[in-house]
Amino acid sequence: MQADKILELLHSVKNGKITVNSAADSLKKLPFENIGSAMIDNHRELRRGFPEVIYSPGKTLVQMKKIFQSMNKSGFNILATRAEKKIYNALKKIYLKLEYHEEARIIFLQNNKIKLNSKPVLVASGGTTDIPVAEEAAVTCEKMGNSVIRLYDAGIAGLHRLTVNIDKLNSASVIVAVAGMEGALPSVIAGLIDKPVIAVPTSIGYGANFSGLAPLLAMLNSCSSGIGVVNIDNGFGAGYLAALINRQIQSV
Amino acid sequence: MQADKILELLHSVKNGKITVNSAADSLKKLPFENIGSAMIDNHRELRRGFPEVIYSPGKTLVQMKKIFQSMNKSGFNILATRAEKKIYNALKKIYLKLEYHEEARIIFLQNNKIKLNSKPVLVASGGTTDIPVAEEAAVTCEKMGNSVIRLYDAGIAGLHRLTVNIDKLNSASVIVAVAGMEGALPSVIAGLIDKPVIAVPTSIGYGANFSGLAPLLAMLNSCSSGIGVVNIDNGFGAGYLAALINRQIQSV
Amino acid sequence: MQADKILELLHSVKNGKITVNSAADSLKKLPFENIGSAMIDNHRELRRGFPEVIYSPGKTLVQMKKIFQSMNKSGFNILATRAEKKIYNALKKIYLKLEYHEEARIIFLQNNKIKLNSKPVLVASGGTTDIPVAEEAAVTCEKMGNSVIRLYDAGIAGLHRLTVNIDKLNSASVIVAVAGMEGALPSVIAGLIDKPVIAVPTSIGYGANFSGLAPLLAMLNSCSSGIGVVNIDNGFGAGYLAALINRQIQSV
Amino acid sequence: MQADKILELLHSVKNGKITVNSAADSLKKLPFENIGSAMIDNHRELRRGFPEVIYSPGKTLVQMKKIFQSMNKSGFNILATRAEKKIYNALKKIYLKLEYHEEARIIFLQNNKIKLNSKPVLVASGGTTDIPVAEEAAVTCEKMGNSVIRLYDAGIAGLHRLTVNIDKLNSASVIVAVAGMEGALPSVIAGLIDKPVIAVPTSIGYGANFSGLAPLLAMLNSCSSGIGVVNIDNGFGAGYLAALINRQIQSV
Amino acid sequence: MQADKILELLHSVKNGKITVNSAADSLKKLPFENIGSAMIDNHRELRRGFPEVIYSPGKTLVQMKKIFQSMNKSGFNILATRAEKKIYNALKKIYLKLEYHEEARIIFLQNNKIKLNSKPVLVASGGTTDIPVAEEAAVTCEKMGNSVIRLYDAGIAGLHRLTVNIDKLNSASVIVAVAGMEGALPSVIAGLIDKPVIAVPTSIGYGANFSGLAPLLAMLNSCSSGIGVVNIDNGFGAGYLAALINRQIQSV
Amino acid sequence: MQADKILELLHSVKNGKITVNSAADSLKKLPFENIGSAMIDNHRELRRGFPEVIYSPGKTLVQMKKIFQSMNKSGFNILATRAEKKIYNALKKIYLKLEYHEEARIIFLQNNKIKLNSKPVLVASGGTTDIPVAEEAAVTCEKMGNSVIRLYDAGIAGLHRLTVNIDKLNSASVIVAVAGMEGALPSVIAGLIDKPVIAVPTSIGYGANFSGLAPLLAMLNSCSSGIGVVNIDNGFGAGYLAALINRQIQSV
Amino acid sequence: MQADKILELLHSVKNGKITVNSAADSLKKLPFENIGSAMIDNHRELRRGFPEVIYSPGKTLVQMKKIFQSMNKSGFNILATRAEKKIYNALKKIYLKLEYHEEARIIFLQNNKIKLNSKPVLVASGGTTDIPVAEEAAVTCEKMGNSVIRLYDAGIAGLHRLTVNIDKLNSASVIVAVAGMEGALPSVIAGLIDKPVIAVPTSIGYGANFSGLAPLLAMLNSCSSGIGVVNIDNGFGAGYLAALINRQIQSV
Amino acid sequence: MQADKILELLHSVKNGKITVNSAADSLKKLPFENIGSAMIDNHRELRRGFPEVIYSPGKTLVQMKKIFQSMNKSGFNILATRAEKKIYNALKKIYLKLEYHEEARIIFLQNNKIKLNSKPVLVASGGTTDIPVAEEAAVTCEKMGNSVIRLYDAGIAGLHRLTVNIDKLNSASVIVAVAGMEGALPSVIAGLIDKPVIAVPTSIGYGANFSGLAPLLAMLNSCSSGIGVVNIDNGFGAGYLAALINRQIQSV
Repeated sequence: MQADKILELLHSVKNGKITVNSAADSLKKLPFENIGSAMIDNHRELRRGFPEVIYSPGKTLVQMKKIFQSMNKSGFNILATRAEKKIYNALKKIYLKLEYHEEARIIFLQNNKIKLNSKPVLVASGGTTDIPVAEEAAVTCEKMGNSVIRLYDAGIAGLHRLTVNIDKLNSASVIVAVAGMEGALPSVIAGLIDKPVIAVPTSIGYGANFSGLAPLLAMLNSCSSGIGVVNIDNGFGAGYLAALINRQIQSV
Repeated sequence: MQADKILELLHSVKNGKITVNSAADSLKKLPFENIGSAMIDNHRELRRGFPEVIYSPGKTLVQMKKIFQSMNKSGFNILATRAEKKIYNALKKIYLKLEYHEEARIIFLQNNKIKLNSKPVLVASGGTTDIPVAEEAAVTCEKMGNSVIRLYDAGIAGLHRLTVNIDKLNSASVIVAVAGMEGALPSVIAGLIDKPVIAVPTSIGYGANFSGLAPLLAMLNSCSSGIGVVNIDNGFGAGYLAALINRQIQSV
Repeated sequence: MQADKILELLHSVKNGKITVNSAADSLKKLPFENIGSAMIDNHRELRRGFPEVIYSPGKTLVQMKKIFQSMNKSGFNILATRAEKKIYNALKKIYLKLEYHEEARIIFLQNNKIKLNSKPVLVASGGTTDIPVAEEAAVTCEKMGNSVIRLYDAGIAGLHRLTVNIDKLNSASVIVAVAGMEGALPSVIAGLIDKPVIAVPTSIGYGANFSGLAPLLAMLNSCSSGIGVVNIDNGFGAGYLAALINRQIQSV
Repeated sequence: MQADKILELLHSVKNGKITVNSAADSLKKLPFENIGSAMIDNHRELRRGFPEVIYSPGKTLVQMKKIFQSMNKSGFNILATRAEKKIYNALKKIYLKLEYHEEARIIFLQNNKIKLNSKPVLVASGGTTDIPVAEEAAVTCEKMGNSVIRLYDAGIAGLHRLTVNIDKLNSASVIVAVAGMEGALPSVIAGLIDKPVIAVPTSIGYGANFSGLAPLLAMLNSCSSGIGVVNIDNGFGAGYLAALINRQIQSV
Repeated sequence: MQADKILELLHSVKNGKITVNSAADSLKKLPFENIGSAMIDNHRELRRGFPEVIYSPGKTLVQMKKIFQSMNKSGFNILATRAEKKIYNALKKIYLKLEYHEEARIIFLQNNKIKLNSKPVLVASGGTTDIPVAEEAAVTCEKMGNSVIRLYDAGIAGLHRLTVNIDKLNSASVIVAVAGMEGALPSVIAGLIDKPVIAVPTSIGYGANFSGLAPLLAMLNSCSSGIGVVNIDNGFGAGYLAALINRQIQSV
Repeated sequence: MQADKILELLHSVKNGKITVNSAADSLKKLPFENIGSAMIDNHRELRRGFPEVIYSPGKTLVQMKKIFQSMNKSGFNILATRAEKKIYNALKKIYLKLEYHEEARIIFLQNNKIKLNSKPVLVASGGTTDIPVAEEAAVTCEKMGNSVIRLYDAGIAGLHRLTVNIDKLNSASVIVAVAGMEGALPSVIAGLIDKPVIAVPTSIGYGANFSGLAPLLAMLNSCSSGIGVVNIDNGFGAGYLAALINRQIQSV
Repeated sequence: MQADKILELLHSVKNGKITVNSAADSLKKLPFENIGSAMIDNHRELRRGFPEVIYSPGKTLVQMKKIFQSMNKSGFNILATRAEKKIYNALKKIYLKLEYHEEARIIFLQNNKIKLNSKPVLVASGGTTDIPVAEEAAVTCEKMGNSVIRLYDAGIAGLHRLTVNIDKLNSASVIVAVAGMEGALPSVIAGLIDKPVIAVPTSIGYGANFSGLAPLLAMLNSCSSGIGVVNIDNGFGAGYLAALINRQIQSV
Repeated sequence: MQADKILELLHSVKNGKITVNSAADSLKKLPFENIGSAMIDNHRELRRGFPEVIYSPGKTLVQMKKIFQSMNKSGFNILATRAEKKIYNALKKIYLKLEYHEEARIIFLQNNKIKLNSKPVLVASGGTTDIPVAEEAAVTCEKMGNSVIRLYDAGIAGLHRLTVNIDKLNSASVIVAVAGMEGALPSVIAGLIDKPVIAVPTSIGYGANFSGLAPLLAMLNSCSSGIGVVNIDNGFGAGYLAALINRQIQSV
């Protein structure tokens, strides 16, 4: 509750417009709905600009249904990540316009129009096997109001695949760079352009990749500046951060 | 070399304005100066928007002097990180207007006016002992054209120190959150506002901090979205990324 | 064997009330029953206040039956953790009043009345997916004589879900805080109240969670004091420690 | 700010006892003093039962003096951990009754009477070299109102040193067990008695101790239940938690 | 594009042999074919001496078919590693002369004659269970133009199996040494002969092998000089490096 | 080949008893049989006192059959560890007197009488779930000529189960102590008696056990001296070492 | 206290030879001397065959003097490991016959004749830099009654240095093998002979040695059986275990 | 001893040219000189093509002098790595023509002419601070008979510094690529050319570099094939391997 709201409320109390108890209630009112196993954070859109996003693993179909019901009732767009197809199939029977982005493993229910930012986000991937993580980033960006340029299989073993696309890279306001193995893609891209780069390590690779530890460390140690790193395989986190940055840019 | 430059060059060859050899030279010309132990990357300002920055550890005074000489000749602003005071003292005799930011361990030589962005960056720190890293971020931001709001010792053991400053947090376009120990500060901040957060883990803490591993992992695993992480104690990297994002915002 | 028992025994020997051999036997008597693959520790209730608890993984149905038989014969309440439903189904045929707490994966057989402590334990969880671990803690507490307040999905991405419940937190004598991802929940709770907090890291999260390592390190490094940490996903251990502390409190 | 305070405040506004602005101020008043490099958390005693404690490493003498001045002015008892003797020597000139506990590396300034709990805390150590960490725990306990029984060099290589002291162990309400090397002391103690055990791993040992990792993991994996673990070498944290538990016990 | 090609092109422009636009196209022409999910690097044979190799895991059958089609059209020999038999079975219907090396998990399609180097590569393995990795190295070598001597189950627990074969070892120009467990095989071999040794750690072993970490570290720490290490289980990488070295030798 | 054998051989050459070529052959003769995928080390019994042992994982049935055939032909006792029951079932049809020790996962074929040592080995385990590893050690010892005392479920959470058996412990010449979780069993045993202790960490435990890392480190860091550690879950290695020590003892 | 002692004591009580109180005292009597910061374990020689050994690091000169005084009074031989020369110099003034083994960093005070075992222990080291650890093992062995054969700088980069000494290796009853870098020495030795091998990893080596982790893992993963591993750089532990085994052998 | 030497020796015995004892001696003769703390491996040049190299750390001046004396007597070129200047200063007084390569920390004594290979080795470094490791590689190469092209400060943050030098890279027969931070240099180079690349990770970088772990993992995980990795900071190992490969090439 912001300072101006407090002042307004106190004036209402003084003027007798509202009772003391009602004001006390307002000051204590819960900005979330408790549905038992979860507390839906209804103020998140107000506070953070995007509604709460559902992380699906470990949630039962019953829990998913309850969460969808609560969020749908509030009229939010609903985005669920890491969602299995069978969850989608079950929910599809209830929400007819439900979308499933298979490679990205994202379920989406659009209840409101998505307002598009003017400048695109570019999502690059090192190899073909990094695409599911890249798609998770790309679809997240799109559902949060960004157009996305995809540049896949652009790894540094064949640098020309990257350098020939330098104009594309420069046309975006933020780059998401997804790579497994030695994870050098974000470093190379950040060395070539003047945009913020969000680096996503993936768990793709031989033994000493250690499930993404190798590219994670590489990205944190980049000799090119201007890189922020997210968790291993966390395409959603990268897409969300890109959307947050891009919205700041448009909002000026 | 961009596509339009190539076309222009080829027309000049065709028209006889320049010779074949001269064009070939242009296509091959080195965009750096080789000073023996280092190759100064003179095109970096063009390519990335900021000139090359000097990482001081492991460089001798002789090497530092050569690099300053080369960059000063080109008229760049020069920023050197992790610089010991004795390096500063020696260079100060040559460059009279040289600055030293002691807590940040940054040497700065201003050769050009710094154009200021309209919106500030906020740099928060969890504790008093995190301040050197926070200052490295803050001074980097300032030298790259940003005003900085500092919010230090705002750790989560006393949440009200943070929540009472929520308007300050919302007034910035980017937040840099610096924390050691359990590294929860960026998560808590990102949960409260709608700005991109750059998280900097520090190596401050008891044994199982493992020199910054604990806050690094915490920041990568944040349940609040919208966070990009940089290397342990890497205040410079965070400041640079913040400056890159903020410049994008202003450039629209 | 305590000092007073020794004195009493020696007096009995001196007085001829018991023979030398019988006294020697008493001094050597085994306080456990050897059932082959296990030695049931029958003195544990005497020594520790609670009877031995069965850790089920890796035990065959035959072994489980033998252990239940031995403990049931001694009249103990029997609690088995991490128990699969098929073990329960098989034992249910023998012990009709057997309970199964599915989310907690706990089998319980009540042979004695449970005496309830006057003050409750509060079990909080960061997210919905942490609930199985939280339930293991909660049910353990309940079966050891405590009422439990549950506060689930109260993670720090929406702080108000936590701060609005501060009275609940203060009404308990001990808090168990269960969290995966960055594991900041115990720190934030401990910063708000004056009760001991038992922190339970869970293995929930993206790649660099490293199966619970991230929240484990975070909890050990908490900048809020007053936190004791148990093993990853070890809801039982947290519940047991909470019960031990709460019993101390009641016993004064 | 608790619910009843809010109600009271609102009634005062309604009754015209205080002005709207003054009430708004109260609702926003900062419960800390900002001294530049630190924000002294003056409400911590109210909120957590003990005033803020100073973690000394990385703080300059100037910063320490400011913090002491601010806290002394408020009349708190002041406890600073990991404090070097030269800091003590400098502060001693200002605060004549300042104490220094050398093995524990604790500076203490007593401004108020310490009210003693009726039951003691027992602090055990595995070896002689663990004593500095054990003393940090013991002195913390004492300054927070507990009498302490010390049981040092009681490691498991000579079990009888421990078993012969079982009555001492049972006389305390909480045990702090400090051990390096394989860290088995807390397990063995927890197996013998019915009190909560706080385990403190130390960084004492040969190579594969890995600076305390070995005993830390051992303590987290204890097969005896009823153990809460704190960070490596964190005697203060253990003492604080013990004091918190013991105060709960006395407060019933 | 090499310097002489640039000069030639510029002369052609000057002489009017080709148009400016056509020259510009040549300078920008993509040396890869974009097939959607992958960009086939057609210049790799020119640049590196061997065509691109397909890493199969994570690629769908549809993707594999597209890549084979694109590379086959260009007339390359095609080598796919870590390929499951069902992928082979499906492709075999299209490419009748397709080979499958089952232990090596390699699919190979020969479109051009393989020119054989005069000196062999020797591939040694420590145990029987290391053979799949060793075969991956051996088949890679063979398909890249080398004859291969196999020396399997030659681990150091029975040194004579190795020393009796010293002439074989000396007859090769490069040694690939594959070993799990303690990974000492490359050290022992490198101590006996004067050839470069490529060491391949495998993930074979008991618990503290940590999926190949133990032999990896051992090989990096070899007290015998002349060893280059590749990733855990990366037989292909070792075979490729051996082929690269052997070709250099033949090319003199 | 020992020095006396060399002298003898040379005298035979000098005396013309054998030809130069035959002597050269003797000097080079392979003390193993090459069966393709494996080289059976036939001299191992001579050299090490026990014939080669087969590590089964990763070996196909065909490979197992070949190795059994080769070793059986030579008349050795054959011991195969980590063997699945289906391998046993297949081999049982060929070797009628083949034994399978199910808990130990050991296949054994006795071709020669086992000569028994006079003093027993004691194998202790911390918990019921450690028994498979303990049995692997015990059966290995037995097949190598030792009687074995088993003392299972003797973990330190109930110390009396251990101390009451101190005479049993002292009756053995070597102790094998198997434990997961915090792995303190070997330390406690070694502190009580004067026999060498072989410590076997197991991968049994909650999350921060890290698949046996916790007890492995604990055992390496034991404050009791006289402990040698083997690999995680490596019951066979412990049994073999115990047998080697015990044979030394008997051989005096 | 053994069973026969208990019986004897009880008979004495019955017969009135000793009073009840005196018997109770005997049953509780402390088998150690409490000197404040340490409890000297006077029964250790009785229980374990060797008196307590002093681990010097972290102990002050005052503490060392007290421990020497207590142990000397009891007439034990006193062995202190990791002792700095200045401690020796100070103690030498009190105990004139005190010895200092500089490379081994061992202080020794001989109060009793050392009875020598008939068979020697062999201590081998991989390199010259491993000698301090090897000497710690060797001197420990000698002071505990064993003759020692030293075989230093016998690393596997020059195998013949090892194989030529095979008779020496076979003449010992136990081998201690000390090695840093890749730590393969124990594997190679164990593959050649039929004696138990105690492996000691050292922290000698380049970066990825990780302070002894590389040889530690290698030794635990040895493909040769019959190896027990001690902690990194723990020469004392290896010497103690060797002495324990050798004494068992002699005692038959 | 090779097969033909054995045959020749046996014929000499048969013909009476040498006695049986003398032949036996030859078969047993030690190919090293035992100087107490070290065994100089005099056959290494014969066996491996280069004489033994001295690793200086941990060796005393006395030990160094003895080793130099022994090797100088045999007429070898002597190369000592990681040598402090004070060792050089002391040895310089004895060996007047002794060289010291300060950045490389290498002492060299040339007793024989160095025969130069026809093709050069190229040593590249990512940054200025990597130069000491790069120089260790370069000087090692030179002393072993190779000319060296140095290409320093060619890191991937400014790719053009690398691509402009592609002809230089192609002119060498082997590349040594030295890099800290994210360690991507070898990947990028290997993607551009067709020569074997030896990758050397350095310990240069911010916190999560973990003393070279980050670039080590990156290099092992390179998506470009044809890379062999050596230990962290091991310039010598890389130079030695490069020399071994280059000699093979020349020897054809």
